[in-house]
Amino acid sequence: MIKAGVIGATGYAGNELVRLLMQHTEVELKTVTSQRYIGKEFSEVYQNYNEINTLICQEEDIEKIAEECDVVFLALPHGVAAKKVTKEILEKTVIIDFGADFRLQNVNDYEKWYGLSHEGKQLLKQAVYGLCEINREKIKNAKLIANPGCYTTCSILSLIPLLAENLIDKNSIIIDAKSGVSGAGRGLVTESLYCEANENMKAYKVASHRHTPEIEEQLSYIAGEKITLSFTPHLTPMNRGILATCYASLKQGITKQEVRKAYEKWYAKEYFVRLTKEGVFPETKWVKGSNFIDIGFTVDERTNRIIVMGAIDNLVKGAAGQAVQNMNIVFGLKEDTGLCQVPIFPA
Amino acid sequence: MIKAGVIGATGYAGNELVRLLMQHTEVELKTVTSQRYIGKEFSEVYQNYNEINTLICQEEDIEKIAEECDVVFLALPHGVAAKKVTKEILEKTVIIDFGADFRLQNVNDYEKWYGLSHEGKQLLKQAVYGLCEINREKIKNAKLIANPGCYTTCSILSLIPLLAENLIDKNSIIIDAKSGVSGAGRGLVTESLYCEANENMKAYKVASHRHTPEIEEQLSYIAGEKITLSFTPHLTPMNRGILATCYASLKQGITKQEVRKAYEKWYAKEYFVRLTKEGVFPETKWVKGSNFIDIGFTVDERTNRIIVMGAIDNLVKGAAGQAVQNMNIVFGLKEDTGLCQVPIFPA
Amino acid sequence: MIKAGVIGATGYAGNELVRLLMQHTEVELKTVTSQRYIGKEFSEVYQNYNEINTLICQEEDIEKIAEECDVVFLALPHGVAAKKVTKEILEKTVIIDFGADFRLQNVNDYEKWYGLSHEGKQLLKQAVYGLCEINREKIKNAKLIANPGCYTTCSILSLIPLLAENLIDKNSIIIDAKSGVSGAGRGLVTESLYCEANENMKAYKVASHRHTPEIEEQLSYIAGEKITLSFTPHLTPMNRGILATCYASLKQGITKQEVRKAYEKWYAKEYFVRLTKEGVFPETKWVKGSNFIDIGFTVDERTNRIIVMGAIDNLVKGAAGQAVQNMNIVFGLKEDTGLCQVPIFPA
Amino acid sequence: MIKAGVIGATGYAGNELVRLLMQHTEVELKTVTSQRYIGKEFSEVYQNYNEINTLICQEEDIEKIAEECDVVFLALPHGVAAKKVTKEILEKTVIIDFGADFRLQNVNDYEKWYGLSHEGKQLLKQAVYGLCEINREKIKNAKLIANPGCYTTCSILSLIPLLAENLIDKNSIIIDAKSGVSGAGRGLVTESLYCEANENMKAYKVASHRHTPEIEEQLSYIAGEKITLSFTPHLTPMNRGILATCYASLKQGITKQEVRKAYEKWYAKEYFVRLTKEGVFPETKWVKGSNFIDIGFTVDERTNRIIVMGAIDNLVKGAAGQAVQNMNIVFGLKEDTGLCQVPIFPA
Repeated sequence: MIKAGVIGATGYAGNELVRLLMQHTEVELKTVTSQRYIGKEFSEVYQNYNEINTLICQEEDIEKIAEECDVVFLALPHGVAAKKVTKEILEKTVIIDFGADFRLQNVNDYEKWYGLSHEGKQLLKQAVYGLCEINREKIKNAKLIANPGCYTTCSILSLIPLLAENLIDKNSIIIDAKSGVSGAGRGLVTESLYCEANENMKAYKVASHRHTPEIEEQLSYIAGEKITLSFTPHLTPMNRGILATCYASLKQGITKQEVRKAYEKWYAKEYFVRLTKEGVFPETKWVKGSNFIDIGFTVDERTNRIIVMGAIDNLVKGAAGQAVQNMNIVFGLKEDTGLCQVPIFPA
Repeated sequence: MIKAGVIGATGYAGNELVRLLMQHTEVELKTVTSQRYIGKEFSEVYQNYNEINTLICQEEDIEKIAEECDVVFLALPHGVAAKKVTKEILEKTVIIDFGADFRLQNVNDYEKWYGLSHEGKQLLKQAVYGLCEINREKIKNAKLIANPGCYTTCSILSLIPLLAENLIDKNSIIIDAKSGVSGAGRGLVTESLYCEANENMKAYKVASHRHTPEIEEQLSYIAGEKITLSFTPHLTPMNRGILATCYASLKQGITKQEVRKAYEKWYAKEYFVRLTKEGVFPETKWVKGSNFIDIGFTVDERTNRIIVMGAIDNLVKGAAGQAVQNMNIVFGLKEDTGLCQVPIFPA
Repeated sequence: MIKAGVIGATGYAGNELVRLLMQHTEVELKTVTSQRYIGKEFSEVYQNYNEINTLICQEEDIEKIAEECDVVFLALPHGVAAKKVTKEILEKTVIIDFGADFRLQNVNDYEKWYGLSHEGKQLLKQAVYGLCEINREKIKNAKLIANPGCYTTCSILSLIPLLAENLIDKNSIIIDAKSGVSGAGRGLVTESLYCEANENMKAYKVASHRHTPEIEEQLSYIAGEKITLSFTPHLTPMNRGILATCYASLKQGITKQEVRKAYEKWYAKEYFVRLTKEGVFPETKWVKGSNFIDIGFTVDERTNRIIVMGAIDNLVKGAAGQAVQNMNIVFGLKEDTGLCQVPIFPA
Repeated sequence: MIKAGVIGATGYAGNELVRLLMQHTEVELKTVTSQRYIGKEFSEVYQNYNEINTLICQEEDIEKIAEECDVVFLALPHGVAAKKVTKEILEKTVIIDFGADFRLQNVNDYEKWYGLSHEGKQLLKQAVYGLCEINREKIKNAKLIANPGCYTTCSILSLIPLLAENLIDKNSIIIDAKSGVSGAGRGLVTESLYCEANENMKAYKVASHRHTPEIEEQLSYIAGEKITLSFTPHLTPMNRGILATCYASLKQGITKQEVRKAYEKWYAKEYFVRLTKEGVFPETKWVKGSNFIDIGFTVDERTNRIIVMGAIDNLVKGAAGQAVQNMNIVFGLKEDTGLCQVPIFPA
């Protein structure tokens, strides 16, 4: 059994991770920590765990937890993981970090977009970007995994075949993404109140969201050249789900069939990537509660643009599920172990 | 492996059953039928199954399915199962019926509340009311199981200890129940449209809902005398969940402690029944996607009434989950096999 | 023009009042105050007012505002109004208080249920309970009006004819009420977050909600004897609306026709009270954005209970609309001035 | 008083029009018609009108209604108005058509996108596209007004200044629009069921929605050259509201200040167009129940794109409100008569 610890378990992503780990046949969840609820039963904070999870929220003590656990998941505010994770810790355990600190190899980008000086630069070289479908081989030997952001996972996976197969004008990418409210976390801010988010649609952090450089960096690796794109996140009145609607100009003469081939080439063997049929587009409800990303597209012949859409459950494939997938890879398990939940509908 | 068939799989309850059976380690799902979608891939009707369920919707042919399957689940309109199920079928397979036809032993009640003449009376004696926590022993040997209604499951389990332990005035029971919209099914009626049900709360079928005689019949068995009660269902703007708020007058001198003892006596060993702590009340979100019923209560000393609340996922404990639980009992499996889903939150 | 001030305008009820006053032909809104947003444009806090309301949030200074305004609305936390309102202020202006401080004539009840010592007792005699349909005559000359609570307005109006006409067993009243989330206000508490309230139904403050003594006191006046009842509030995933489902045992021999007559007697001439037709039950969506209360009932002959339901918009008839109605009465305007909004659907 | 008739009053747009006309001081609503509910009280179909609207749903008889009414609003399926409206009718009354039949001057486009042969071509010359902010002068003398579509209103108004002032690359426009479910109407289709639309985000009719040629035609007039663009509608789990997020490449050297000036030039005097402040973006909740369109933008300097967002209430500015605005113009009333509703929040 893999011994696992979750630091920052009482946020929505941490909580979802606990749910998945409890149903994982090869994992023993040893420790959950929380800043706000130290000493409380985890099942008091999240009563879905009543009678089935007896853990108590511990104070965070990463050294001790690293000692006891084979894998430690960090769900901490930006900037904190960079300070807490050390070489010594990485000798003792595998770290899978939900935050942004080790996602960007470009420190300048990190410092500019996050407004922080990076306190863990020296570990960046070791860090592997945990987008499993792409970095599987590197993840196998990683000790420090930067679990990708929710918008980024959805956007990158939706766009990879287009860039990898050189099908689009690389300067033409626009991502219009829509997220459920759980993406904003459990913090107490007015915008997250029921009456503020319900019955409303809005864009936010237009042209300034921090997932932008993350998407760009990863897509640049794929494209083999620097990608700059537009990314607009929207807050949608639903609990879970991200839909990323991506636009790009097709290169002269590229057909819908060639596009489909590219997607099939990249994803036919990927269990967690499902391509929708011609004329069918992804919907967030069809992936809810699961680690799937559904991808579909059409070609607008009038404008010669491709519109490709990806749908994920932001708390699963966009956070906790992908973290488990990363863990499975590191520990040599079948990649879908504990991740075969059938999407739940209607839910 | 238990071979299973689902007749009427493309309604919400049937669909949820498919989800659960796919994750059940001891079941092979052989056949799904549908009236509306014959010949279509099940995963086209419910795209959550894309790439993970390759079944085609069959035409209903109960004799043939009974031949091939060890257990057949029926999710059919009222009155249809009573006609379809025969002695011969019950010799070949176990029937678990989601409809009302075999729930009421009192044929007069059935014919009055459902406005139908009962076409399967001769099988009623064989039929076992599949409320697992209560009828476990009878279920073990049953061939024909009437899976309880959603409101009834929630209401009956919430009230049993009060009646069984003789703690309340038997004429004083009022059940005010609130259900999510999936309880109304997938049929095309104006009331089920998004804009009609969203941002709205209403009661419906006040004092005339068909689950009333079912609740009364079962509670009468428990009480050892005829129970008549008030039941008011409400439509709540959410996908899933039932909350039943039940009121009754306590017998003179009964204390909160005695009430708690009664609940503990009845439910301490029941895995799927969870009692909330003193001062904590059930919420539908904490059971979503699971087979749990959460029960909590308080005593209003000013009026000497007990208010007991039960919360279930109407599609799981209120339908498909309980059906699987019944199947597990019949086939001698551990009762929670395939039913250990941790409730999913927020969802 | 009536000069009006709103103290505590940036909560949901205060904000709704501003909306109504802006559309009131006889009112000039002079001042809005806020604790949290002093110096900010009101239209920055609530951007629906962009370009149509240029007021700046002021610091609260009740003496000054009383000087300048003919009527001052208070939307303050419990206990604060009791301290702020003085004889001197009441000589200068009319106070309409949204809080609980002057609603209960019984100081003991106030101090017990609110856990506060009452700092404005000496003004209680002057205070008029502003349930317009009942206290119209007293309101005309009032200087201090206690605007009723949302649950209370809905519950009391639903039950009055039954008690006034002596149709029910006075000990048998149970009120099971369901409220939208705006009833909880704009404060930052975890329970009010979107992901916590959405897709959930729960009861709260069971047998202990502070509107209970208010309902009881008013109904006791009507009944001519002490009424004790059970009241259970529920949080419903919608922005606005209260549905109160009320149960009571009919006196021997009372018929549905007699009940209807009682309701017609009391409400036929009341513009804001609408009786639904036989067999039709109130829904919150049909009153949204309006000052109406819709009331409907049925008699359950099997249990001899009446089930009567009332539906209001909690922010209008349950708060700001009723406050305007009170103001209209005090200032001798037609009672529906500024309150003829047609309910908005779907919304 | 202007005598008005509404043909097709029991759809959501027709119903919203009835609401607005009832509150319009210069209008007498004479007739409402319905296919489905002939002979029923309108207030039985929409119970918000209980006791305040006594109209009976009539059978459609456009000649008779044209005789009796000064203005007739048509809310009919595509293709029907083109057949019903005649020269004779237009001599008797003003027609304001909610459908698409007279929106496109280009008959080929109409026949291609709607798959219908146009049965009212001969009237197209007379038809005025009723986008009030742009066509005010023409509307004044119009007898046949094509009320714009909801997506189109929002998209066109958001983009006009950019094209009119020649600030963008005309081939670069992408509109990613999100609509509430009322936009789909009250028809009984599975996609509009609560459980299907709730907790879900999806795109639909990608690159094939019929509002596309309408947007293009109008923007082409503004630009003085043929505009082709990408338009992607999305279904959002809320009752009302459209948010259109529009992308375009700025011409070399255009600054944010120049863009703002263009918007101010076009809209500073438009009562129903509100520009958000720098850094603030439109949200559908701030316009709900009102005829406003809120427009805001930012410039993404990294990609040299402008992102401009428009938010409307699809049933008001996107349908019934704009129809009333058109009527006001035709009849020489102040343009905002009956349209000064303050947006309602939270709702």
